[in-house]
Amino acid sequence: MADHNALPLVILAEKFASLPGIGMKSAQRLAYHVMSMDDDSVKDFAQALINAKRNVHSCKCCQNLTEKELCPICSDGERDGRVICVVEGPKDVTAFERTREYNGVYHVLHGLLSPMDGITPDKLRIRELLARISAGGVEEVIMATNPTVEGDATAMYVAGLLKPMGIKVTRLAFGLPVGGILEYADEITLFKALENRNDM
Amino acid sequence: MADHNALPLVILAEKFASLPGIGMKSAQRLAYHVMSMDDDSVKDFAQALINAKRNVHSCKCCQNLTEKELCPICSDGERDGRVICVVEGPKDVTAFERTREYNGVYHVLHGLLSPMDGITPDKLRIRELLARISAGGVEEVIMATNPTVEGDATAMYVAGLLKPMGIKVTRLAFGLPVGGILEYADEITLFKALENRNDM
Repeated sequence: MADHNALPLVILAEKFASLPGIGMKSAQRLAYHVMSMDDDSVKDFAQALINAKRNVHSCKCCQNLTEKELCPICSDGERDGRVICVVEGPKDVTAFERTREYNGVYHVLHGLLSPMDGITPDKLRIRELLARISAGGVEEVIMATNPTVEGDATAMYVAGLLKPMGIKVTRLAFGLPVGGILEYADEITLFKALENRNDM
Repeated sequence: MADHNALPLVILAEKFASLPGIGMKSAQRLAYHVMSMDDDSVKDFAQALINAKRNVHSCKCCQNLTEKELCPICSDGERDGRVICVVEGPKDVTAFERTREYNGVYHVLHGLLSPMDGITPDKLRIRELLARISAGGVEEVIMATNPTVEGDATAMYVAGLLKPMGIKVTRLAFGLPVGGILEYADEITLFKALENRNDM
């Protein structure tokens, strides 16, 4: 925003632009939008930012974000604590919960290994996962990180730590997305779909 | 966000989703991002929202957003007050200022006529424009609203009010964008470019 713009607007646009996926043009548009909101809505927005940061923290068991000491999934007696699904972030928990098919529990790593970016194993919640397994009662750990270089590397690394503990470690299946069109599938996905083919 | 998510996070995501151009998935991602920001950054963001809304208002002359009573452009003695460029919003002022070619002043309407959405002439800052012109000293008004149905209608409406006041009213030229490819131009743009052709 050029120097003819009001400074508080420039500052607000910069805050928006610091968020992921929001460029300077969108940020400017959002700042202008805030000007058109009524006073109470802006105050509510500001308060929502403060409240989320102040009241939400990691579940002491699965590390997912929650307001309570233990998240609703970990404190739900009907979930099967013998199976832990290990995911990169809280949004992946949401994705699995949407399927309504998974009844185990989760462990949120809060990131993927990426040594080039300084994300080494100690930066992830791997220690907490090992502690949960050491406490006993876990039979299977499903590595459900993304099928990317970092996701695969993280899954391999964690699996390497878990196997000596006598735990069954599995990985999500890769293949064609349901409803996907074969012609548009990339080579690696198609290769995985072929390699993992099932009897009919 | 499903009910296993912490409530303050759901509320924050809803606030983000209420902004233009941000869907629920992006809003959720932004809410998670806020969790990864440090406390001070979140407080600064919240304060930036409050400050922008509290300290920024319309310039009493051109209606552009400013912290002062009169915006930097209106209070700049070197700008030519005889020419007023009428635009839809503050972002259009920024666009013209970027050209570094315009030395007149502006008038920000804060919207375009759209009777279907309840945006009638009294909702725009047209009264303030007429008052400026009545005060004298204005020779030309450039209607610089977008070349859309609403932009054209607004330009026509305002021009209809100004002409009886003996003011020269002009409209931005329409034609091919510089660097554009003729083959990809839509029919109406191409027709306008043909119609408004210049001698070489």
